[in-house]
Amino acid sequence: MTSHPAASPPPPVPDSIHALDHEIRSHWPSIQHLLTELLDITPPAHDAPLTHHSTPQDITRIRRWARPGPPQPLETVIGEARAIFDHRVRINHPLFFGFIPSGTIQLSWVGDMLMAAFNAHGGGRTFGLGPCVVEEELLRWLAARLGLPARTAGGVFVSGGSVANLMSIAVARDQKLDGNGQAARGVIYLSERAHYAVAKMARGLGFADRQVHRVRCSEAFELDVEDLKEQLVADRRQGLVPFMIVATCGYTETGTVDPIEDLADIARRESLWLHVDGAYGASVALSHAHAHLVAGLGAADSVAWDAHKWLFSSFGCGMLLVRHRDHLRSTFGVHSELMDQQSGGLSEQPEPWDLSVELTRPARAMSLWFMLRVLGEERIGRMIDYGIDMADSVQARLQAREGWEILTNAKLGIVTFRYKPGTCSEEDLDRINTTISETLVEDNLAGIFSVRVSGVVGLRVCCITTRLSEEDIDRLIPQIDMTAKGVSKHF
Amino acid sequence: MTSHPAASPPPPVPDSIHALDHEIRSHWPSIQHLLTELLDITPPAHDAPLTHHSTPQDITRIRRWARPGPPQPLETVIGEARAIFDHRVRINHPLFFGFIPSGTIQLSWVGDMLMAAFNAHGGGRTFGLGPCVVEEELLRWLAARLGLPARTAGGVFVSGGSVANLMSIAVARDQKLDGNGQAARGVIYLSERAHYAVAKMARGLGFADRQVHRVRCSEAFELDVEDLKEQLVADRRQGLVPFMIVATCGYTETGTVDPIEDLADIARRESLWLHVDGAYGASVALSHAHAHLVAGLGAADSVAWDAHKWLFSSFGCGMLLVRHRDHLRSTFGVHSELMDQQSGGLSEQPEPWDLSVELTRPARAMSLWFMLRVLGEERIGRMIDYGIDMADSVQARLQAREGWEILTNAKLGIVTFRYKPGTCSEEDLDRINTTISETLVEDNLAGIFSVRVSGVVGLRVCCITTRLSEEDIDRLIPQIDMTAKGVSKHF
Repeated sequence: MTSHPAASPPPPVPDSIHALDHEIRSHWPSIQHLLTELLDITPPAHDAPLTHHSTPQDITRIRRWARPGPPQPLETVIGEARAIFDHRVRINHPLFFGFIPSGTIQLSWVGDMLMAAFNAHGGGRTFGLGPCVVEEELLRWLAARLGLPARTAGGVFVSGGSVANLMSIAVARDQKLDGNGQAARGVIYLSERAHYAVAKMARGLGFADRQVHRVRCSEAFELDVEDLKEQLVADRRQGLVPFMIVATCGYTETGTVDPIEDLADIARRESLWLHVDGAYGASVALSHAHAHLVAGLGAADSVAWDAHKWLFSSFGCGMLLVRHRDHLRSTFGVHSELMDQQSGGLSEQPEPWDLSVELTRPARAMSLWFMLRVLGEERIGRMIDYGIDMADSVQARLQAREGWEILTNAKLGIVTFRYKPGTCSEEDLDRINTTISETLVEDNLAGIFSVRVSGVVGLRVCCITTRLSEEDIDRLIPQIDMTAKGVSKHF
Repeated sequence: MTSHPAASPPPPVPDSIHALDHEIRSHWPSIQHLLTELLDITPPAHDAPLTHHSTPQDITRIRRWARPGPPQPLETVIGEARAIFDHRVRINHPLFFGFIPSGTIQLSWVGDMLMAAFNAHGGGRTFGLGPCVVEEELLRWLAARLGLPARTAGGVFVSGGSVANLMSIAVARDQKLDGNGQAARGVIYLSERAHYAVAKMARGLGFADRQVHRVRCSEAFELDVEDLKEQLVADRRQGLVPFMIVATCGYTETGTVDPIEDLADIARRESLWLHVDGAYGASVALSHAHAHLVAGLGAADSVAWDAHKWLFSSFGCGMLLVRHRDHLRSTFGVHSELMDQQSGGLSEQPEPWDLSVELTRPARAMSLWFMLRVLGEERIGRMIDYGIDMADSVQARLQAREGWEILTNAKLGIVTFRYKPGTCSEEDLDRINTTISETLVEDNLAGIFSVRVSGVVGLRVCCITTRLSEEDIDRLIPQIDMTAKGVSKHF
């Protein structure tokens, strides 16, 4: 037996898990009680606080709890956890219109419990065959709904849009740039309004900021195709190597969608990679009445899509879908070299870890699958339509009132607007609308935040949660109106 | 109101979530029943199958279930989920010695339920303040246990070791290479036995395979410092730019640890980044009797560490710790440029999303925190010691029997060995040991797999689960011995 010089005396008794399992079992009534409470907590009541004002004392207490220290009774720690989680924004509150994502449903939570309890390895078929097969098949279904070619398309579940965007840039680089210094001259194009996550991922991959070119947006808040074309000509003339266009399907500020089909034409003609950041908007491909708004997704080379945005999942469930599954494998399938020697080439079924930056990972697909399977294909589509219709409804009601200006028409569940009493300066209008947002949040009436659109401060409502009802809107619009009138009196 | 041309008729009724919440509530007895079952399932019984033989018919059935289709009763889908998860390797089985990770405990599952139910945003303090404070403080505690400097150290929770390794390479590149073409001549050093994930991540970041140099391993299966020194001299002479050493703390095959302190000296002298892939081994820093085995971790510039390996968490909980928190921010804090304008420089508390590739993400720290808080600091250390002691025990019992050869001494919970009856050729020995592994798995006696060590096929036992008891080993060793004797009769 190997003997190691002991740095401190050995433990008094071997500490196997069996005692611990037994201990936890003795707490079963507490855990069951917790679950009953969680079932109530997951859909927050209307009067639950949207945000929480945290004092320095609160933070100090949380810091004290955060360190493991001596063992604590399970019930105590559950209480601490509840108190810690109180210090959060309730993004699934029916009246939270703040940002994407929101509106996680309880079914996702049940799915997560299943996923965590079985804790199957989601990265390799050898270890988690059942969940891996579900992932493959579910991705095939999702890819088909986007219009990607059934024969070649594939994808992988990742922790979210950022990792999906990072992976898409890595794959585009490998497919479009040679390894002999082209990377230093490669250029990625995205609109000036694209989410900063994409540029961040390019930097993470080692591209200099000067290699990410911003394309102007049209008056419709979409990437301006003409500006892109001009930049491509000018950049090539300078010896740069354009290789990737990133289109946005669902801008978080306005809900607009870039002209994907036009961009796909350009990408094809110019031999560029077309990636669509559809983290929030790609879900509209599942809607019944509005799928045409995201037409063209099937022409992309890759699409980032988050289930934890508009597919009602809890955080940590994103997808990267690609036109050619082999492209993922060629960048991330390092291991497959070894495998290929054994199998004599690419085998029919790649291991999920050969398609992703991740190796060991949770069986994420199972949680989304659980929810989709219970709800059914038709209902998930209606739930997405529902959010789009609610935003239309908010816009219609605001337009029916005096003093409200729509800044951007309702699109993909998002509408932006501002209160504009006739006599105020633009400067005052900015301050009035900022104060309206602050007042609505402080009074726990609505999580509506300000946004800068076309140089003015507006208010933004994002309705993708299905927790919001017509009755909520009936109540809310007069409250917003009254708040606005009250605020503007002081200007 | 904006009107869109409808692609298909609008849904018959608005489909708010309220009906759905009610529906799910009506299923509460089923969910509660499920949870009772899951509590039993999470620690698998000894007679539960280690693996599952899946027929093509099974796979076809899973594929059929995988597509959402029409809505299904919750109870049906729970049944389907259970059947799908059956097709997995039970890596938390007491007799699964196969690979890391294993041995997730039920407390992690309770922590996951809390995390998923509250679904707080783990990426930004504005949205998930409580959980973000826990993350900061817990990382501080973990960093201190590794010996990283309290004043500057920081880190972030990620989905696992692969992403942590990827991020560390990106940060090392940004800290050590200039942006003017040095990246193309940069060289990363890692041992020939390092996990292939590291080279895969380098490739993902755009480094050519020729930029990842493999360093020889010594007879102790550790990175050979002399070989590294020679390579550094030779490579510099050729105009290459060494910038990063990746040390392994806990090789998955043998449990050995690279000479981290020596490597830290070299890194300091040569101005290289020292990253330690401690995905599995870093946990030993929390042990009471064996922490000296991973001495030197505090000298690293960055350390990858997975809670879902040897901190008993379920999948999806990894950490990247760094000596200087600002280094993470400088690579991943794209957004902070804007923030800095407002705050006039680096604010004291960076947002977690400025330290990571991820923006929106689960509040992963809360699940690990929950477990550590209930168990307490002292017990988690004993649980790690327990695994190390168990491997010593396996080794001692094998050595006490005829015909067994230890290939690598028990280290960090791993021991490799082989059955070696006197009269066999090396070729036969390889086949005998392969067959022993196959037989043990087929007979559901133990998940012990073969491994190639020093050119011969051996068997590998990884004991990091605390589910394994001394009684299990008492029973297991004679079973292995008998299996080995039975197998070798046929050679």
